[in-house]
Amino acid sequence: MLKGIAASSGIAIAKVYKLQQPILNIEKKECDSAAEVAKFQAALVKTQADIEAVKAKAEGKLSEEELAIFDAHLMMANDPELSGQIEEMIKNESCNAEFATETVANMMISMFESMDNDYFKERAADVKDVTFRLKCNIVGAVIPDLTAINEEVVIVAEDLTPSDTAQLNKQYTLGFATATGGRTSHSAIMARSLEIPAVVGCAGIMEQADQGDLLILDAVEGQVILNPTPEQVKEYEAKAEAFKAEKEALKVLKDAKSVTTDGHEVELAGNIGTPKDVEGVLNNGGEGVGLYRTEFLYMDSELDFPSEDEQFEAYKTVLEGMGGKKVVVRTLDIGGDKKLPYFTFPEEMNPFLGYRAIRLCLDRTDIFRTQLRALIRASVYGKLCIMFPMIATLDEFRQAKALFEEEKAKLISEGVAVSDHIEVGMMVEIPAAAVLADQFAKEADFFSIGTNDLIQYSMAADRMSEKVSYLYQPLNPSILRLVKMTIDGAHKEGKWVGMCGEMAGDELAAPVLLGLGLDEFSMSASSILRTRKMIRSLSKQEMEVMAEKALQCSNIKEVTELVKNSLK
Amino acid sequence: MLKGIAASSGIAIAKVYKLQQPILNIEKKECDSAAEVAKFQAALVKTQADIEAVKAKAEGKLSEEELAIFDAHLMMANDPELSGQIEEMIKNESCNAEFATETVANMMISMFESMDNDYFKERAADVKDVTFRLKCNIVGAVIPDLTAINEEVVIVAEDLTPSDTAQLNKQYTLGFATATGGRTSHSAIMARSLEIPAVVGCAGIMEQADQGDLLILDAVEGQVILNPTPEQVKEYEAKAEAFKAEKEALKVLKDAKSVTTDGHEVELAGNIGTPKDVEGVLNNGGEGVGLYRTEFLYMDSELDFPSEDEQFEAYKTVLEGMGGKKVVVRTLDIGGDKKLPYFTFPEEMNPFLGYRAIRLCLDRTDIFRTQLRALIRASVYGKLCIMFPMIATLDEFRQAKALFEEEKAKLISEGVAVSDHIEVGMMVEIPAAAVLADQFAKEADFFSIGTNDLIQYSMAADRMSEKVSYLYQPLNPSILRLVKMTIDGAHKEGKWVGMCGEMAGDELAAPVLLGLGLDEFSMSASSILRTRKMIRSLSKQEMEVMAEKALQCSNIKEVTELVKNSLK
Repeated sequence: MLKGIAASSGIAIAKVYKLQQPILNIEKKECDSAAEVAKFQAALVKTQADIEAVKAKAEGKLSEEELAIFDAHLMMANDPELSGQIEEMIKNESCNAEFATETVANMMISMFESMDNDYFKERAADVKDVTFRLKCNIVGAVIPDLTAINEEVVIVAEDLTPSDTAQLNKQYTLGFATATGGRTSHSAIMARSLEIPAVVGCAGIMEQADQGDLLILDAVEGQVILNPTPEQVKEYEAKAEAFKAEKEALKVLKDAKSVTTDGHEVELAGNIGTPKDVEGVLNNGGEGVGLYRTEFLYMDSELDFPSEDEQFEAYKTVLEGMGGKKVVVRTLDIGGDKKLPYFTFPEEMNPFLGYRAIRLCLDRTDIFRTQLRALIRASVYGKLCIMFPMIATLDEFRQAKALFEEEKAKLISEGVAVSDHIEVGMMVEIPAAAVLADQFAKEADFFSIGTNDLIQYSMAADRMSEKVSYLYQPLNPSILRLVKMTIDGAHKEGKWVGMCGEMAGDELAAPVLLGLGLDEFSMSASSILRTRKMIRSLSKQEMEVMAEKALQCSNIKEVTELVKNSLK
Repeated sequence: MLKGIAASSGIAIAKVYKLQQPILNIEKKECDSAAEVAKFQAALVKTQADIEAVKAKAEGKLSEEELAIFDAHLMMANDPELSGQIEEMIKNESCNAEFATETVANMMISMFESMDNDYFKERAADVKDVTFRLKCNIVGAVIPDLTAINEEVVIVAEDLTPSDTAQLNKQYTLGFATATGGRTSHSAIMARSLEIPAVVGCAGIMEQADQGDLLILDAVEGQVILNPTPEQVKEYEAKAEAFKAEKEALKVLKDAKSVTTDGHEVELAGNIGTPKDVEGVLNNGGEGVGLYRTEFLYMDSELDFPSEDEQFEAYKTVLEGMGGKKVVVRTLDIGGDKKLPYFTFPEEMNPFLGYRAIRLCLDRTDIFRTQLRALIRASVYGKLCIMFPMIATLDEFRQAKALFEEEKAKLISEGVAVSDHIEVGMMVEIPAAAVLADQFAKEADFFSIGTNDLIQYSMAADRMSEKVSYLYQPLNPSILRLVKMTIDGAHKEGKWVGMCGEMAGDELAAPVLLGLGLDEFSMSASSILRTRKMIRSLSKQEMEVMAEKALQCSNIKEVTELVKNSLK
């Protein structure tokens, strides 16, 4: 039995499909450069064809967004900059094509990786991906074709690259286990999005698993059992059944109200990144969209900011898709670790404390106005709420709101139909906003608490920094007090408060949040039904008593024990 | 008249000493490399001698710390790495010595500058400084000798390098005006430390001022008048007299109590970085040291962490120097933008939200225990208060306090004399700590509010980042509320609260802080008397009423107006 991290929950029992990439030992050799250039060009053509082929097989099985990775790879394979540099090196140094490819690739990879920003890190991964294929084609090595899998398997791999995960077929891939990676690695995110069980960071799996071995993937507990005994298989078949049954049982709650045992109703909504995510929210009984992250519209755009019309179409699709249910759209939240290919951010020592989100939008009002216009135009297609991210001062909120009002008035004067019921609120994710919530609530229509950032700033700890990630403590009484100030401030003015951070769907946090008076819980679609079940089992009044006590605790340990005891 | 930034207040009238560095036009030439190497070596010897000479002249006039810059420069001039690379280039390329020096220097400078950390940026400045001298010696250009100034002047320069400011003689240098720089540039800090008036960022001054021109330096309003009329000279002589008189008038308050008109007494203390700063605190009537930044002990150490004995000597000197007045020592606050030459910090995306201060000390308890032992041993020489920086959770405070108790018990068992009255407190500079202050106050002996960080984290804005520095708002009601929570939390448990950030000495903030109940105001020594005068003119009760209103304001503008009106 091997231990790992449960990255996407579920249980699978199937044969091992061991993904083994060819091992290339590339050394520099003196060669006839004309022959090597010809070899390189042939391999390049084959590489382009390979990518096209993989893409064609994946079409229909994958979403547009997932397919986009192949377009990026094709662009790279067709990039004259890349092939030009390689050919030049072959000619100048009379060296072998695979060595030139590797040298140029490594240079580009280290250049991209040194840039310390996610966009370029992804580009580094793309270069690796494409040039690996290229080198294999030069030396005649064969890359395993994941789309060729035609029986039920659990994939075992060192790690999965973007082009690997893009090829996964849910019909046959019952799950996967990787030797490296963490809960937030690419493959982990992909597993949750595909809703297949996955265990990552499972050290030793590549050494111990053989092709065709029977394997139990327990992505509930985060473990893998190789060559299980018949008893273990039986046990896990039962567990898998129970897991499935529970999932089914939750489905009956799809149209149920999110109401406590003492009749208090809250709203359970879903977080989405693109219009296609609407389906998942509805399928999981979401009562609305509590957070539409519009930055993906911007990040997926290749050459320039998305136009007003492009944005309008996306917003309209979501609003219509939700069929009149509330949709909370967060305006552009870019900067920090989220960069754009076509926009240069200033170099900053601490990007999380820098030029981002509303700060950028109030500085570059041209970009902001375009988004506001697209949103206001879309407002007639559903129930739109707009919120501004990273508001620190009331002056910022007032400026953003004024721009909204200006664009709304302009559109009306242009004869465009707009809704009269657009709510304009803000994220509470900066400590200063939580502390002054009562003042903000006089002017904002609603709040949505962004816990990831709120916790990071309140604790002054970047949770991505390994050495200080222990300070990411959602249940620390200081965080609960900030949530309490936010909710009390809003309720005093008759406004509602949502939460769209990870904390809202947390099994220990949600009861406390209920007790503190949170009105709307927005989470990943897959957590909604589980949370609804829990809410329906709790008494609001009891949770209020418990939350009151939690506010007087001294540390997270005391709060955790208190919650656990009260849920017993 | 030219406008600039008043970096160190005061008024001076004197002749211009225009610091003009030789302009070198260096081009690559083909040369006999043996002759060039010989030329280079001669210039290197002269450079070393020059630095020695400047240092010798500065001795006695400058502190040990200020002299240290010359040692750094000597080390660099003697560095075989630097000279070796230059000689190699001369030999390999048969080029002229000054070109090789410039090329190697630029490479090293850009390498250091790219490292994005203050320590290496200073090293870049050192390389510039030393290699400029070297190039001048190669080509026979003469560098002006600031120590040779023997009449009263105001120095006019593009900017002043560390080795320039280290040579300034306060007797003759009545002030300076530079074309570049800001309030926090090296030369500005140096001017305040030397207590001479300075105007920085005074664009155009190098073009308009000529050697020997009469100049009025108005570092109160931040302006410079060149070749003034006799009337202007008269006017400014009167102003200078008044400025001096006011300074003298403040001196009578040196031994006065810091007491309000209605009899409420507070404590005004000084912030220090090294033992030699004690004198300034006492001369300015400081009632204690509210913040001793021990990181300088670590940053000035070249090769390794300072030993227990070295630290003990420094702490003892400060405690003895303050003659029984309270000394609040902050334990090692390193990391973020403060690096050490002999310690490798992890690469972090957001160092301000990372591995620093108490986080590092609780991880590397070996380093922390050494400091605690040195402090506890020194405790018998005065009134010692120890505080931990960057406390976010009560668990961290408990761990740090436990280490303190362990080392204290060990020292006692070793027969070392220790004080029974050491207070152990903490910085409140992380929002989570302010919000939970009532819980912390049950276990900490005192709080000291660090406003720079508290504001940065509460607003999620790095004030060094130009684009978001507008969010550095000490008087924002959200910040005042966090200060209020901290003070109320402490007072409920009978503990005292100080403030050691810039805000404590601010003319608009101090009245509000008085009203909020702050017990101790710690600031740069030069602000103490001015603040005492103000405190003595205020009514605590009136400030309480005003502060109560400030907490209900919606933005900084409202607070600022409120304070200004109440001070009228």
